[in-house]
Amino acid sequence: MAYDRSLVDRLLRESREIVLQELQELFEGNRPTGYGPLYDLLADYPFREGKSLRPAILIASARAAGGRTEQARLSAAALELYHNAFLVHDDVEDDSDFRRGEVTMLRLHGAAVAVNVGDATNVLAMQLLLRNAEVIGLRRALLILCEVERMARESVEGQAVELDWIRQDIFDLNDQDYVRMAYKKTCWYTVIAPLRIGVLCGCPAGVRFPMERDLVPLIELGHLAGIAFQICDDLLNLEAEPSVYGKEAAGDLWEGKRTLMLLHFLREADTASRKRALAILQTPRRKKEPTDVQWLLDAMIERGSIAHGRRMADRFVERAIALDEYSMTFYEENEARHFLREMLWYVVERAK
Amino acid sequence: MAYDRSLVDRLLRESREIVLQELQELFEGNRPTGYGPLYDLLADYPFREGKSLRPAILIASARAAGGRTEQARLSAAALELYHNAFLVHDDVEDDSDFRRGEVTMLRLHGAAVAVNVGDATNVLAMQLLLRNAEVIGLRRALLILCEVERMARESVEGQAVELDWIRQDIFDLNDQDYVRMAYKKTCWYTVIAPLRIGVLCGCPAGVRFPMERDLVPLIELGHLAGIAFQICDDLLNLEAEPSVYGKEAAGDLWEGKRTLMLLHFLREADTASRKRALAILQTPRRKKEPTDVQWLLDAMIERGSIAHGRRMADRFVERAIALDEYSMTFYEENEARHFLREMLWYVVERAK
Repeated sequence: MAYDRSLVDRLLRESREIVLQELQELFEGNRPTGYGPLYDLLADYPFREGKSLRPAILIASARAAGGRTEQARLSAAALELYHNAFLVHDDVEDDSDFRRGEVTMLRLHGAAVAVNVGDATNVLAMQLLLRNAEVIGLRRALLILCEVERMARESVEGQAVELDWIRQDIFDLNDQDYVRMAYKKTCWYTVIAPLRIGVLCGCPAGVRFPMERDLVPLIELGHLAGIAFQICDDLLNLEAEPSVYGKEAAGDLWEGKRTLMLLHFLREADTASRKRALAILQTPRRKKEPTDVQWLLDAMIERGSIAHGRRMADRFVERAIALDEYSMTFYEENEARHFLREMLWYVVERAK
Repeated sequence: MAYDRSLVDRLLRESREIVLQELQELFEGNRPTGYGPLYDLLADYPFREGKSLRPAILIASARAAGGRTEQARLSAAALELYHNAFLVHDDVEDDSDFRRGEVTMLRLHGAAVAVNVGDATNVLAMQLLLRNAEVIGLRRALLILCEVERMARESVEGQAVELDWIRQDIFDLNDQDYVRMAYKKTCWYTVIAPLRIGVLCGCPAGVRFPMERDLVPLIELGHLAGIAFQICDDLLNLEAEPSVYGKEAAGDLWEGKRTLMLLHFLREADTASRKRALAILQTPRRKKEPTDVQWLLDAMIERGSIAHGRRMADRFVERAIALDEYSMTFYEENEARHFLREMLWYVVERAK
């Protein structure tokens, strides 16, 4: 099937508009009885440049399951907020300088404010999900909250794994270690939860209403697609110019982030190169030399680590596409369903 | 009415046992499919020495409303977890050294881990509240989640107000400014939410099931009692020995925390004393001199600021007691109801 970029772009844009409008109303609705300055901070990250990938997947999944966009609006906006809360805290945890092309909340306002803004963002996301009861009923609202609990739990566990690697200075990791961590940290909240919550929002009431077993294939589909997405996101980080990507160039190398590509290089490099790489990675970011980081990037390219990442991403996407063909019995054949398929291509295409 | 310390102590102890057992099961239940080391960290704060005030109020409120302890277990344990999540993040935000007589999560494991552990604690609290549906039904479970959303929102707003005072170096604040901040930051999650959620858990189904308007008096009761509690907690911090209280002696002065007593002193002191006090407060904690902090404490005592705090706390408790006599129509006269009344005395008595 040909990759239809215009459909992907259009539905991403439409979903983003829906979400931003919902969030605008949410902030304005809470402001009169709340503490104004907090709501200014809350609006910062969500209104920065972004793809709104997660809400788009959620809304498309709802429509593919036979539902209307209206049924998925609140959940889509909530998921975008959870994502933003995660980013605000993640930037504190990684001590990051930039996010979406601008200075992080951490650098703008300090760790104390950033931690609190992240917490507040989570609270408002929950408010949206509670309002779901009025739109799609009590039972669905609660099922969706259960999905969000699982998603958030997987994310903090994935984050805990990665933080332990950092604190214990662990670099001796294989592809499987990486995939296990990213499954928890990325796949749940980027793909699995959006797909599953979408079905819960959109599926018609009655006998077809999905049971837990119906939603199981979406875990595997989201797993495969999510890993491909994360690898490609890390490839973009390594390769793109700062102006294109919105972060520092090769920011992950400056941060010492364990990517599939970096871990491949550390396994495959000769002893001297590996030693030099570890010394660079263990140097605090502000003390790293640009020439060292550039050497590491070049060495990774030469060693085939970038190619290894691209190959793995392709393989995961191929498996996702194969699974997608046979297991998604609750989806109809419509535009939204088409978008979900196209997204699988989009993930790898954008990193090429 | 005579203050019955033994009843207060017994029900506090019983509630704490219930909560710790529930939390133990929660952590063990999530561990097998989760990331073990995270659950060790999650258990740290909740199992430190503590009063478990909030679960005790919640369980007593449920029983006073005619319910059984069983109906309130999950919510009580959840509230204790939300409290602990708040403390873990609060310690990051305040850059604190000690909590409950031990070194903070921040100092033990760094800000990155502490932020993530706080987030994980919130997730598990939500898991408990979702399980409420099996015990007390879908509708109550959702109403309780709405209470928790409100509670958490008020807390982050109160926190935002206080963080702004710190970042903008604002000390020129009156009693009303203080009370408004503490209402949001403390009252909701220490008293108002435990009381209201207790009623929602315990109230018999049927015509007597509380409407929103029935629960309104609990906002004011919790407001009055919560302010008294916070003032007394701050009095204890100023006056108690470190071994008694579990934090540094006069830790709030070292941190420059805006307490009712400190703000009173800054308003009432002569120009020279005020200037010296501000210089001390604006010095980073690690550069403060013990003799300076001692001078400030002595000056506050001499200026009547401690007495002012005690007087205000008494006044708030008296108003709470008066309100409590007339407005709590959904409570029965039983042991738990007696405990709730005694708690009002307990709050001020423990600071004497």
